[in-house]
Amino acid sequence: MCDEPLTCTVNERLQPIYNMTEKRSEISDLGEFGLIDRIAQHTQLQNSTSVVGIGDDAAVLDGGEEYILVSTDLLAEGVHFDLAFTPLHHLGHKAISVNVSDIAAMNGKAEQVVVSLALSNRFSVEAVDALYEGIRAACQQYKVDLVGGDTTASRSGLILSITAVGRVPKDKVVYRSGAKPNDIICVTGDLGASYIGLQVLEREKEVYLVNPDMQPGLEKYEYMVGRQLRPIARTDIVFELAELGIKPTAMIDISDGLASELFHLGKNSGVGTRIFEDKVPIDQAAYEAMALEFKIDPITCALNGGEDYELLFTIHPDDFEKIKNHQDIHMIGYVHEKPNEHTLVTKHGNAVPLRAQGWDHFKSGG
Amino acid sequence: MCDEPLTCTVNERLQPIYNMTEKRSEISDLGEFGLIDRIAQHTQLQNSTSVVGIGDDAAVLDGGEEYILVSTDLLAEGVHFDLAFTPLHHLGHKAISVNVSDIAAMNGKAEQVVVSLALSNRFSVEAVDALYEGIRAACQQYKVDLVGGDTTASRSGLILSITAVGRVPKDKVVYRSGAKPNDIICVTGDLGASYIGLQVLEREKEVYLVNPDMQPGLEKYEYMVGRQLRPIARTDIVFELAELGIKPTAMIDISDGLASELFHLGKNSGVGTRIFEDKVPIDQAAYEAMALEFKIDPITCALNGGEDYELLFTIHPDDFEKIKNHQDIHMIGYVHEKPNEHTLVTKHGNAVPLRAQGWDHFKSGG
Repeated sequence: MCDEPLTCTVNERLQPIYNMTEKRSEISDLGEFGLIDRIAQHTQLQNSTSVVGIGDDAAVLDGGEEYILVSTDLLAEGVHFDLAFTPLHHLGHKAISVNVSDIAAMNGKAEQVVVSLALSNRFSVEAVDALYEGIRAACQQYKVDLVGGDTTASRSGLILSITAVGRVPKDKVVYRSGAKPNDIICVTGDLGASYIGLQVLEREKEVYLVNPDMQPGLEKYEYMVGRQLRPIARTDIVFELAELGIKPTAMIDISDGLASELFHLGKNSGVGTRIFEDKVPIDQAAYEAMALEFKIDPITCALNGGEDYELLFTIHPDDFEKIKNHQDIHMIGYVHEKPNEHTLVTKHGNAVPLRAQGWDHFKSGG
Repeated sequence: MCDEPLTCTVNERLQPIYNMTEKRSEISDLGEFGLIDRIAQHTQLQNSTSVVGIGDDAAVLDGGEEYILVSTDLLAEGVHFDLAFTPLHHLGHKAISVNVSDIAAMNGKAEQVVVSLALSNRFSVEAVDALYEGIRAACQQYKVDLVGGDTTASRSGLILSITAVGRVPKDKVVYRSGAKPNDIICVTGDLGASYIGLQVLEREKEVYLVNPDMQPGLEKYEYMVGRQLRPIARTDIVFELAELGIKPTAMIDISDGLASELFHLGKNSGVGTRIFEDKVPIDQAAYEAMALEFKIDPITCALNGGEDYELLFTIHPDDFEKIKNHQDIHMIGYVHEKPNEHTLVTKHGNAVPLRAQGWDHFKSGG
């Protein structure tokens, strides 16, 4: 029971929030992952139906014949999206995709979503319609049902909170923790394009602020902008792996960047990884935009860009033959036994330690 | 598929949000329930595991032997709570209780929650700790497991989004839609105290703003303030009804006020209700505060105050005997066949039509 007194003074109430008198620890010093670890640390499971709690792409609940998967994401205006270049229907679509992707990363299939919305009065009913148009389009695309939610006012900006519920046969669930030495590391699609799409959109916004009549000419960047505004969850891969008779040993979706996800996989599996720069898939047009226009090393975009929503997974070496000709699955390296040692072998053959930069929204002020 | 173009201009993107050129419809004109109806209207279910979608206290999913219940709530600072008088641990506790209450209103038992949090950098790590202290205390109290969530920065204020997952045997689920003419209307606990607790806290805040050193003397109002700051979900009633061999014909929890919930029950069941003022339970100290100090008619507080988180349910007349001596269940009226006709019989014997005021956060600016 929470036995704190109810009748304290306003001063006593405000004190723990701002915590000016004692030591005040900043969330930005802890970071998002540090904060999650802190929360997970004190959390015990009491119900037999709670199979796995905090720490993977989704929670795993006992659902009798199958496992029930539950994943949740909160998207905040000004932190996760900028409405100056994010059409609301794309935002709605993306919010669903992001959660469906988390369920896919458990080797499961999302079947339901609940959507909560907080919005200030600068939004019209038509704006809400546009948002739900995208949500519904994504639901149809992934064959997911919108079964509930909550709508409320907010003091400022738009907040979207989505929870997805999925299912997976009990013997098919894939955790972050199953990677073994000599497993092959695979990644789907291509990486880094979403990040460069975001750079293009931010540049366009700057141009607009200077000259609102300027036509941006985004055609050339359509693929990259599309990756940023409307990523597609790789439910097709989950289906195809099952068809091929492959169950990955570990899996995670790439939301914070390949490097960051390799660290997560490695930490949860107690292993290290070695990947090869020339194997990391990057789209050709995106590559050119990275290298020539934005002058960013393409491998840096691929490693740390994030928001790719591709799947990163490991397979047993015996499964190599089944997958080697797949057009959209790329084998980028292998797992080894040294925990927390993650290495990139560059095109020139140098082995450099990977660093997990990822995204930390708390660092940027917020 | 969402086939909107990706390469439109910033102007084209901003237009649907602010929608200044064409008709712009205000969400405040539609109201929260109007908005929910609008969203539900265009939503179809495609998966056989989606049993009931939008429109009850929780979504109902097929879980093999049982039903899986999913309920979600979003709480926004400045809209749902004021941190000047809401200690963070109480807020955490309340956020869980509110969702557990939704699951109870389906006659189910909550077993898991996921908690998402957006917070600005004015919050310290210690503030997050206090919030989770309350969340954990509630989880322990209700025997619910915290199994996941998301933490992120926000541009302003604190947003809490909770999704609860519960279970109920298939033959025990209770919807809002099962009330039949002649059923007895029951309500648990007492009503209106939470609302008056909020008035006390707001008055205290005003006093504080004038004189920060003033000691508020809330002892007298402890029950009311407790009802507002730390409501308890009536999971005990769900248990006791099962013990008594009673399955309510319809049930809903009282979050927006008794009158509003009677309208929901009536609408979903296609019936009307008649309740009696002298049967509506009001706490004695709260009654005095309402009538004497705040000069609000106590029945108005009970009907429209909201945030009571008591259960409102209907039972078949045959179950009357089983329940008539229960200390904490009050029979306040009966169901009749005239849809949308809801009547209050006053202490003086006058029959007056009920109006559902409820709470509409969108009306108050937001």
